[in-house]
Amino acid sequence: AVRLRVREALGAREPADAVRVQGWVRSVRSQKEVLFLHVNDGSSLESLQVVADPSLEKRDLTFGSAVEVQGKLVKSPHRMQNMELQAETIRVVGPCDIWSFPLKMKERHPLEYIRQFPHLRCRSNTLGALLRIRSEATAGIHSFFQDNGYVHIHTPIITSNDCEGAGELFQIGTSSEAKESAEETHFFNVPAFLTVSGQLHLEVMAGAFTHVFTFGPTFRAENSQSRRHLAEFYMVEAELSFTESLQDIMQVMEDLFKTVTSTVLSKCPHDVELFHKYIAPAQKSDITHKLFSSSCRISYSEAVEILKQAPQTFTFKPEWGSDLQTEHEKYLVKHCGEVPVFVVNYPYDLKPFYMRDNEDGPQHTVAAVDLLVPGVGELCGGSLREERLPFLESRLQRLGLTDAYQWYLDLRKFGSVPHGGFGMGFERYLQYILGVDNIKDVIPFPRFSHSCLL
Amino acid sequence: AVRLRVREALGAREPADAVRVQGWVRSVRSQKEVLFLHVNDGSSLESLQVVADPSLEKRDLTFGSAVEVQGKLVKSPHRMQNMELQAETIRVVGPCDIWSFPLKMKERHPLEYIRQFPHLRCRSNTLGALLRIRSEATAGIHSFFQDNGYVHIHTPIITSNDCEGAGELFQIGTSSEAKESAEETHFFNVPAFLTVSGQLHLEVMAGAFTHVFTFGPTFRAENSQSRRHLAEFYMVEAELSFTESLQDIMQVMEDLFKTVTSTVLSKCPHDVELFHKYIAPAQKSDITHKLFSSSCRISYSEAVEILKQAPQTFTFKPEWGSDLQTEHEKYLVKHCGEVPVFVVNYPYDLKPFYMRDNEDGPQHTVAAVDLLVPGVGELCGGSLREERLPFLESRLQRLGLTDAYQWYLDLRKFGSVPHGGFGMGFERYLQYILGVDNIKDVIPFPRFSHSCLL
Repeated sequence: AVRLRVREALGAREPADAVRVQGWVRSVRSQKEVLFLHVNDGSSLESLQVVADPSLEKRDLTFGSAVEVQGKLVKSPHRMQNMELQAETIRVVGPCDIWSFPLKMKERHPLEYIRQFPHLRCRSNTLGALLRIRSEATAGIHSFFQDNGYVHIHTPIITSNDCEGAGELFQIGTSSEAKESAEETHFFNVPAFLTVSGQLHLEVMAGAFTHVFTFGPTFRAENSQSRRHLAEFYMVEAELSFTESLQDIMQVMEDLFKTVTSTVLSKCPHDVELFHKYIAPAQKSDITHKLFSSSCRISYSEAVEILKQAPQTFTFKPEWGSDLQTEHEKYLVKHCGEVPVFVVNYPYDLKPFYMRDNEDGPQHTVAAVDLLVPGVGELCGGSLREERLPFLESRLQRLGLTDAYQWYLDLRKFGSVPHGGFGMGFERYLQYILGVDNIKDVIPFPRFSHSCLL
Repeated sequence: AVRLRVREALGAREPADAVRVQGWVRSVRSQKEVLFLHVNDGSSLESLQVVADPSLEKRDLTFGSAVEVQGKLVKSPHRMQNMELQAETIRVVGPCDIWSFPLKMKERHPLEYIRQFPHLRCRSNTLGALLRIRSEATAGIHSFFQDNGYVHIHTPIITSNDCEGAGELFQIGTSSEAKESAEETHFFNVPAFLTVSGQLHLEVMAGAFTHVFTFGPTFRAENSQSRRHLAEFYMVEAELSFTESLQDIMQVMEDLFKTVTSTVLSKCPHDVELFHKYIAPAQKSDITHKLFSSSCRISYSEAVEILKQAPQTFTFKPEWGSDLQTEHEKYLVKHCGEVPVFVVNYPYDLKPFYMRDNEDGPQHTVAAVDLLVPGVGELCGGSLREERLPFLESRLQRLGLTDAYQWYLDLRKFGSVPHGGFGMGFERYLQYILGVDNIKDVIPFPRFSHSCLL
């Protein structure tokens, strides 16, 4: 018998004898004359309908059990399904203890409920669809950059850079160090941390390859229970040499977004539909609305003016020189008509040392850009980098970081070029296109304060 | 002027006026009548020859400087090069302080030398070629699995599993925890570690998707200065459900190896050639020899017999029940004719709890497989997993791990299926196909004991 994935069986053009399908039972319906099963193997959202003689029923053949079915693949009489399998034999490969199995047949379990079972929730329709989409989006990101001549770089996870200022860091020790923790010995001889961004390492590579990208895990040790933050999350980062304008950076953000989203839509239309039907129906979640058909671009200074003139009062009073808060971001997106909003040119004193000085005044800014999107807030952040040695030297000196960043200054001594780049939060991207409220539901194994299951 | 990457300019079919090329100067040769430059932008190993009037020469135009050249792209009179650029203007975008620049014009620096400069070595021919190959191999790995219906899973980096027994672990704390280290508070409420393998998490997913893979960083806190070990390295891991034979697992290893290697060969022939010409000329490094044209399969028990009958003496006496040492692996590969060697069915007591019991005796084994390759040793390791609840329960109980692995036992209670998988060390793969002796030279930013530069 020819082994077929469920997806292949469902998409078959012709009937076939002697077919073998393996998977897990999603429903059992026993009638007098006929036994119906639905078998799913994760290759698609849709399950394969199996039609069998009631004599093939057995006690172990329950929801959740693993089965192998052999039989004939025939045209289905039902309009909704192309093919079905007429079973000749059904073997229960692994039974399922349905009384203790937390998933129940034909129930649409709330996301909060299945989150308690990180080892089993992937067997639900919703998480199954999510993880297939995540996989296609991952492939789409690699293809987008590869097709555009970017070199992929594995930027390091463990780093000795601790002063980027991007929030609290996780520190690394060995298990034996932890025991004798008073001692000042380190595995790496220096304190080592989990990366908060691959940017500085990408800048190294942008000095050799012009266009580079990375796509890997990044970390924040922030004690947050927000629906938009994780301790471990994925970031796509790109760096472009010979780039003198923020517009170039924004264009790549937009192209990346459009290309990956189109890929996802064409590869998993049913999986995406599930989210728009059941998870985010309230939101006007037709994904085509989210394809950057329109976007808005304002400066930070304009943003502050818009906020100051807003008819509503904010918890944090908008003021030039202060960070935009979530409430501000929300208002700006609404103000622009619920479309993606690029905010450019942030206050010099708010931003890290590596951002390029716009040399303006009296409201001194750097060439930074954030992309805010409806429902999620900040999706991307980027900037031009300070490529001019004297500017960078004096800024690092004022911060007392000259010694730590000697290597970074070197990049400006040996063939420095104007360059810039950005990062996009991968989980937030998924939240946005699918309308998923909680970031814990778009990653296989969420890690956040007080929780590291499995 | 049309902006072209060096690779595009070199590959152009037709001459073109008004072309703009940006990159870094790899050589300057000034003659009475003409000025020759070679400009490289990392898009290819080969640089573009620029021909200019000597009047365009300036003091800043040195090796290592960043330039923008405008001019005409014309057929080159030289046999070795298709196109060259007749410069009309040359602008030095960023000068290079050649006296302190550690790379020198037209020198082939030893790998050990450039390893001291992790922020600059990517500008050498060798590391440039390596990183392009690494990028193509990365893309090739994603494509291989995607094309074969595998779902990509981001298995977690931070994990609370600490007892897989794969060596010493890195433990995670927050920077503030480190300061008040006596206290027993943890960010995650439980001790958390850097992953040594995504396998157990992949097994979770193999219960929903049948075929899954992951490709990410893994960690070992081992105090080793070996040329084959890093503290942070990359591993490709795959898990297959409904698999009852080690042969299936070995077949995927072999297919993965062949497909990715063919991709690399067709995408970066010149980069690969550099390694075979200059880095590993001593080794018979014709890569086609390494394409699994032949391989060998022996059992662990046969391996021990071969070692016992070897005419040479080993530091570690070969004995049934002991681990194979590097010297043993080397001998086995030589014995089999310097081809890849699969060793199957290892002693039960040597291997972790999740490997499938072969129920044989008196030499009790599990269904494990290691792939040994010439020059590198262990490249892949895999096994069938114990899918039978009673076997797994009693083994975990004997190890006192029942509570910690309740979730793992759950996978066997709810639709368990025969399954198996493997991991391949990505850096060792690169070492093997390129003949690179030291693993520190095949990763952008190596991390090992006493060293975490940048």
